[in-house]
Amino acid sequence: MLGAMQDWDLRVTHLIDHAAREYGTREVVTRWADGSETRSDWSGIRRDALKMTQALRRLGIGRGDRVATLAMNHGRHLVSWYGAVGVGGVLHTINPRLFEGQLEYIANHAEDRVLIYDAAFAPVVEAMKPRWTTIEHYVCYDPHPGIADIGFEDWIGAEDGETEWAGGDERDPCMLCYTSGTTGDPKGVLYEHRSTMLHAITGLQPAIFDFDARSVMLPVVPMFHAASWGLPWSGAAAGIKFVFSAVNDAKVLCDLMQREKVTHSAGVPTVWLAMFQHMDATGETLPALRQAVIGGSAAPRFMIERLMRAGVNVAHAWGMTETSPVGTTGAKTADWDDLTFDQQVDIKALQGRVSFGVELRTVDLGDPAIVLPRDGVSSGALQVRGPWVIKRYFKADRDATDAEQWFDTGDVAILHPDGTLQLTDRTKDVIKSGGEWISSVELENAAVGHPAVAEAAAIGIAHPRWDERPILVIVRKPGSTATAEDIRAFLAGKVARWWLPDAIEFVDAIPHTGTGKISKKDLRDQFRDYRLSDAA
Amino acid sequence: MLGAMQDWDLRVTHLIDHAAREYGTREVVTRWADGSETRSDWSGIRRDALKMTQALRRLGIGRGDRVATLAMNHGRHLVSWYGAVGVGGVLHTINPRLFEGQLEYIANHAEDRVLIYDAAFAPVVEAMKPRWTTIEHYVCYDPHPGIADIGFEDWIGAEDGETEWAGGDERDPCMLCYTSGTTGDPKGVLYEHRSTMLHAITGLQPAIFDFDARSVMLPVVPMFHAASWGLPWSGAAAGIKFVFSAVNDAKVLCDLMQREKVTHSAGVPTVWLAMFQHMDATGETLPALRQAVIGGSAAPRFMIERLMRAGVNVAHAWGMTETSPVGTTGAKTADWDDLTFDQQVDIKALQGRVSFGVELRTVDLGDPAIVLPRDGVSSGALQVRGPWVIKRYFKADRDATDAEQWFDTGDVAILHPDGTLQLTDRTKDVIKSGGEWISSVELENAAVGHPAVAEAAAIGIAHPRWDERPILVIVRKPGSTATAEDIRAFLAGKVARWWLPDAIEFVDAIPHTGTGKISKKDLRDQFRDYRLSDAA
Repeated sequence: MLGAMQDWDLRVTHLIDHAAREYGTREVVTRWADGSETRSDWSGIRRDALKMTQALRRLGIGRGDRVATLAMNHGRHLVSWYGAVGVGGVLHTINPRLFEGQLEYIANHAEDRVLIYDAAFAPVVEAMKPRWTTIEHYVCYDPHPGIADIGFEDWIGAEDGETEWAGGDERDPCMLCYTSGTTGDPKGVLYEHRSTMLHAITGLQPAIFDFDARSVMLPVVPMFHAASWGLPWSGAAAGIKFVFSAVNDAKVLCDLMQREKVTHSAGVPTVWLAMFQHMDATGETLPALRQAVIGGSAAPRFMIERLMRAGVNVAHAWGMTETSPVGTTGAKTADWDDLTFDQQVDIKALQGRVSFGVELRTVDLGDPAIVLPRDGVSSGALQVRGPWVIKRYFKADRDATDAEQWFDTGDVAILHPDGTLQLTDRTKDVIKSGGEWISSVELENAAVGHPAVAEAAAIGIAHPRWDERPILVIVRKPGSTATAEDIRAFLAGKVARWWLPDAIEFVDAIPHTGTGKISKKDLRDQFRDYRLSDAA
Repeated sequence: MLGAMQDWDLRVTHLIDHAAREYGTREVVTRWADGSETRSDWSGIRRDALKMTQALRRLGIGRGDRVATLAMNHGRHLVSWYGAVGVGGVLHTINPRLFEGQLEYIANHAEDRVLIYDAAFAPVVEAMKPRWTTIEHYVCYDPHPGIADIGFEDWIGAEDGETEWAGGDERDPCMLCYTSGTTGDPKGVLYEHRSTMLHAITGLQPAIFDFDARSVMLPVVPMFHAASWGLPWSGAAAGIKFVFSAVNDAKVLCDLMQREKVTHSAGVPTVWLAMFQHMDATGETLPALRQAVIGGSAAPRFMIERLMRAGVNVAHAWGMTETSPVGTTGAKTADWDDLTFDQQVDIKALQGRVSFGVELRTVDLGDPAIVLPRDGVSSGALQVRGPWVIKRYFKADRDATDAEQWFDTGDVAILHPDGTLQLTDRTKDVIKSGGEWISSVELENAAVGHPAVAEAAAIGIAHPRWDERPILVIVRKPGSTATAEDIRAFLAGKVARWWLPDAIEFVDAIPHTGTGKISKKDLRDQFRDYRLSDAA
């Protein structure tokens, strides 16, 4: 049939072209670890990315080659995102908090050819160099005299930026992120130009990032964490101002947010705990802030409430590396303006609803062939599918999905009749007691509502009669002397009676994974020999 | 390279599936011409569209076949959008206001096989039936006893909706709209599933439609006008509530907006003129309204200012049938909150900036090889390209674009350094005087600011010395006795001295095209023998 619309590939380089052309002078601010500050803009980011493309070509790096970064959030890291994809390569953001064995596995498995790293991670890089077998070139973002590798600015400074982005198919890969699974080797998620673009454009809408030209975003979420939630891509599509901080210190973040009039923030719940403590101590406020995207793990109710009282819209999000990562956001509902404040907080405390593109369902935990109803009661294994959801892990020999493209998330969830997602646990962490399921996450969320509790983790302990019973492991806030009885009394009425933990143990610290989440695996190891008093 | 994201075609049926699944009970309200009202919801729209798909298959209609509508805005029309594309066909929305010759040409050129029409247009349909050579089946949306064709509800009511959407390639066509050019035959723009989807998703962002689940949209723009600005597609992606009115009477629209708590509206400027008159006469207000998309032709400054004073965000948009149609919108700028109200109105009075995806440039009116700078001064022919911009008209034997996919819009415009578009005229209507260009549109916009002027049109009249000189043709408001001198005094200082019209003529009515715009062609015909007094 004759007649057509234009040819236009969904390649992510369109994003930086648009940002530089239409928002060329919109700033990209970096606050470095040493307290210094640099300012660029979208035009400068694009020019530097083109230079990096030339520098990569000079090294023989091209289509499909993996270019890795080991770095915090800053403007040069942003340049690298577009430089790596601009040469037709695959950007591989490595989490510097991973353990050495994981770092070794990931870079070798990815077959990274170039690594660009922060000077702060130079000791790690030097230790790893003999173990990384494929990396040919090392570049340091912020070198000091003790570092032998070339500095990033010198490296790209030798180029003139007079070049073109590599072309290619829109289903070519553009980015690789590894998930640090709690069991087995890390697995790589290979994003495509097309999936990344659809995710980026969809993210602009009010229900997700709510970006327009006025937006000033300080992404606390690291650029190495789950594609930085797609923010470097979506931000370019809307021409927002970015404010990056290479350190996640609450004082630094608060200062930056105030000075740069930050309107949008994105980070995991623990970031806000630290921010609140700082703000309580200093009496500071964040008057410009109006949107906080919270994800990575469930946000406690008091956090959402506090932000909402300060006039901040909370986009409580659920997603994972395998979903690019935005799956759901706690967007305002149709009846929002008719709800009380408490009802509004109730809605935001759940994980929200899918945006267009994403589909969810839950299946029975015991028999995945049984699809559960969206009844607000049935709890099951959460599955997802859509254009920015994984089909196959990098180098895997089979799809990660079933025949209908459903991907099992490893989360346990309830779906409400209107599609609202309520995460209740991880499949691995849910506690089976007397043939029923107890959500470790709900127990933890209830416990952290107690003013004396800094952090809480619930795990199942083997029990001869009930199969498993929950215990609660708690880190008290400094100076607090709350007892197990205090916590138990506080929990009563907040969770079902039979969910109340059989024991409450106080510890100095709870183990975390490389991505900052509670490591239930390590905690279970720690309490392997634990015996409940009535189960001796 | 092993590893991949999921397969997911950009087919528009995903939109209605999403809306029905996630916003199934969100209403679609229709106020019919006879004053009656029907209410459906996204779930019902989808079910009816599936039934229509079955009914079409029963007629042998399938992939690529054109299914035409001749109808105002209502829920059954919305069903037909999804039903026609759902069977793999091409929805062809015909403008019932076209003249008979155009109606004949368009349906025959499109080779429409089915036509679904409003009873109000039955006389036109009966008159045209002998001239339409390809239409095999006629269905009436709202039949009365005098109509022999089957009624829409009876037609789809015979089906059970137990079927699937047709599959196909995402670059298959899904919709056909003809432009009623002022010269030559109408030309068909054939939208693809993919272009339509990218346009629909992009439209959700704050800078364009600003849609979320709370949005209640009354689209005054007809469903037969430039793909109804893509609203039936974007609205489904966000699960908004739709309120349709089959008549465009100001009282009816005001009543509906108040009663259904309409938050979003979209229409041409003349709609707001009528609304203002009604609101002034009755003292009514629209307290729920917060977003007004105005396009089709330039919105006068006083209109923007009045809406903004009422707390409504004005998305002053530019686009055309060939651009799906959203090209630019007058979104808030980065410095918005630091501007005075008057400065904000100044920005909204221009046509705004492109969204991600669209690119603009201007070229010299005399020599299109010369690309003009974005300097806020140079005025030239506006060109556009992007994923939802036309490549080739339906059945044309060559592309409508140049080798770099630039499409010439026929508009004359200035681009500002920040990319803001300022339309100054149509290429055909610009008035050449003494080797310089006078914008007929700016003259008209200045003139309609006078309280006595209901409508104004400027055209060039041949002049022996200056090539052309402008005259202004004015329709006075009822009861007004303003003179040419009054108008001229009002214009002085608002436009350049040498732009002041050589004559001002008062008429009872100004001719319009089938899409409601001023027909400069007819006006020029009317004034063909006009002689300027100093040019006799």
